[in-house]
Amino acid sequence: MSPEEIAAFGIEGQWPVIRRHRIRWSECDQFAHVNNAAYLSYCEDLRVSHWLSLGGRFAVGEAGPVVSRIEARYLKALGFDDEVALTLRPGVLRRTSLTHEYAVWHRGLAFACTTVIVLVRHGSAEKVSIPQAMRVMLLAQGGSEYPG
Amino acid sequence: MSPEEIAAFGIEGQWPVIRRHRIRWSECDQFAHVNNAAYLSYCEDLRVSHWLSLGGRFAVGEAGPVVSRIEARYLKALGFDDEVALTLRPGVLRRTSLTHEYAVWHRGLAFACTTVIVLVRHGSAEKVSIPQAMRVMLLAQGGSEYPG
Amino acid sequence: MSPEEIAAFGIEGQWPVIRRHRIRWSECDQFAHVNNAAYLSYCEDLRVSHWLSLGGRFAVGEAGPVVSRIEARYLKALGFDDEVALTLRPGVLRRTSLTHEYAVWHRGLAFACTTVIVLVRHGSAEKVSIPQAMRVMLLAQGGSEYPG
Amino acid sequence: MSPEEIAAFGIEGQWPVIRRHRIRWSECDQFAHVNNAAYLSYCEDLRVSHWLSLGGRFAVGEAGPVVSRIEARYLKALGFDDEVALTLRPGVLRRTSLTHEYAVWHRGLAFACTTVIVLVRHGSAEKVSIPQAMRVMLLAQGGSEYPG
Repeated sequence: MSPEEIAAFGIEGQWPVIRRHRIRWSECDQFAHVNNAAYLSYCEDLRVSHWLSLGGRFAVGEAGPVVSRIEARYLKALGFDDEVALTLRPGVLRRTSLTHEYAVWHRGLAFACTTVIVLVRHGSAEKVSIPQAMRVMLLAQGGSEYPG
Repeated sequence: MSPEEIAAFGIEGQWPVIRRHRIRWSECDQFAHVNNAAYLSYCEDLRVSHWLSLGGRFAVGEAGPVVSRIEARYLKALGFDDEVALTLRPGVLRRTSLTHEYAVWHRGLAFACTTVIVLVRHGSAEKVSIPQAMRVMLLAQGGSEYPG
Repeated sequence: MSPEEIAAFGIEGQWPVIRRHRIRWSECDQFAHVNNAAYLSYCEDLRVSHWLSLGGRFAVGEAGPVVSRIEARYLKALGFDDEVALTLRPGVLRRTSLTHEYAVWHRGLAFACTTVIVLVRHGSAEKVSIPQAMRVMLLAQGGSEYPG
Repeated sequence: MSPEEIAAFGIEGQWPVIRRHRIRWSECDQFAHVNNAAYLSYCEDLRVSHWLSLGGRFAVGEAGPVVSRIEARYLKALGFDDEVALTLRPGVLRRTSLTHEYAVWHRGLAFACTTVIVLVRHGSAEKVSIPQAMRVMLLAQGGSEYPG
């Protein structure tokens, strides 16, 4: 995204993942605003494509990201056909979990969210360490090691 | 709900709103677990029916509840056709906002969520004080005044 | 459901499956009407619980119902908090497929839908014959054999 | 879309509206296939953006498209992260209604749908004639007048 586009959306800070989205009819409720659950599906879209970009997979027997905690702030109402930017960045990395930060931008910050993601082997309850190659990529994208 | 049913769901604490739900096919993703956004729709269902039960309405010109903040913890995976209990209770009341606590129970706590709700006049951005009659009901349901 | 309730919903004809539903906030769009896709999820809810009631399962290696065709007519708009009745009945049975009829009732018929359902072994593309015990139940529920 | 891309998707026939889509995690059910209701939301996305492109609006007092009938055929299962093409074309135009044809393509036709759309003044039940300028555009896009 060009610096002009980033400025138009009002995006602040560094975000390794940026995607455009136009608000869908099906995302709006009868008060003509995007429903609060729809924002979580935006986060999910970013999360799963980010996971694939890191070499992750979604298959039985493979480690995958599971959401264990969400903190979300709804700052501006959005409406049908609004053009927004969706952003993701990794936060703090522990051994088998990490945080993600997500934001939605529309002439400034409209939504901010932090999630705790645990890596779990699909088909079991086994927690899995962040693979080393993935950890390197996450750190290069601005993630930080947990100080401990 | 009978004491036996409450014990079977593993419900702890006092909850003025309790509702049964059977997990729908459409709520599960391809890992066969309830999607994290679906839980927010459960909270919404409780919130809107609770609002109606307090004498609130959903109409242009009327005050209505708007979610400004969500903190959610996903504690147990749920699957298709699981029978769960959904609960809501009011938390802390301020002048134009309050908190709600929500939980989903399935042989114990599966999901816990706190939201900050702001009362906004629909069709404007005007914040509205919690009506006195509603405040009385919320306090009777276990809500507490913000100490300040 | 009592004859008085059936009359209040305006239900006509014989329906072996009848369920109440209260329209959810999340099912309504910004024109304050139930979104056309939400009706298909009602049909799905009826279909999967009907399948379970016939002794069917949803698991890898088991036959399950797959929708191959839908014909739906939207006759009345429905709105938030409307109380409706959802109904299902089997239609015409062939060897590996059958039709379902669905309806939504709110002071008369609001929505009518016919689907063609094919039985497919989950995890393969193999079509499966309707099991004989299931066929007997479907005929008892008003289904009819395809004349051929 | 280039002729090579059209060939790769297996698109046949003339479609004035073509859009790419990558299957979302939230659109897939626990059998790892796109849920049948999700296809209707694709159709809705095409319909509302097409309506805007014709000069239509979505507002109280304005005519808008209302779905009165859907006939849909599900021909191929689609899965997470599949890249598909979504297409729309106008069909037969009457005075206050028209048909739309929709399709989803993934190495050939995966889904085909015809809907009957009625123009209704939002906030009333009044049917509205297709505006002349819009009719001209629809005919230019391959629509045909109803022979009568």
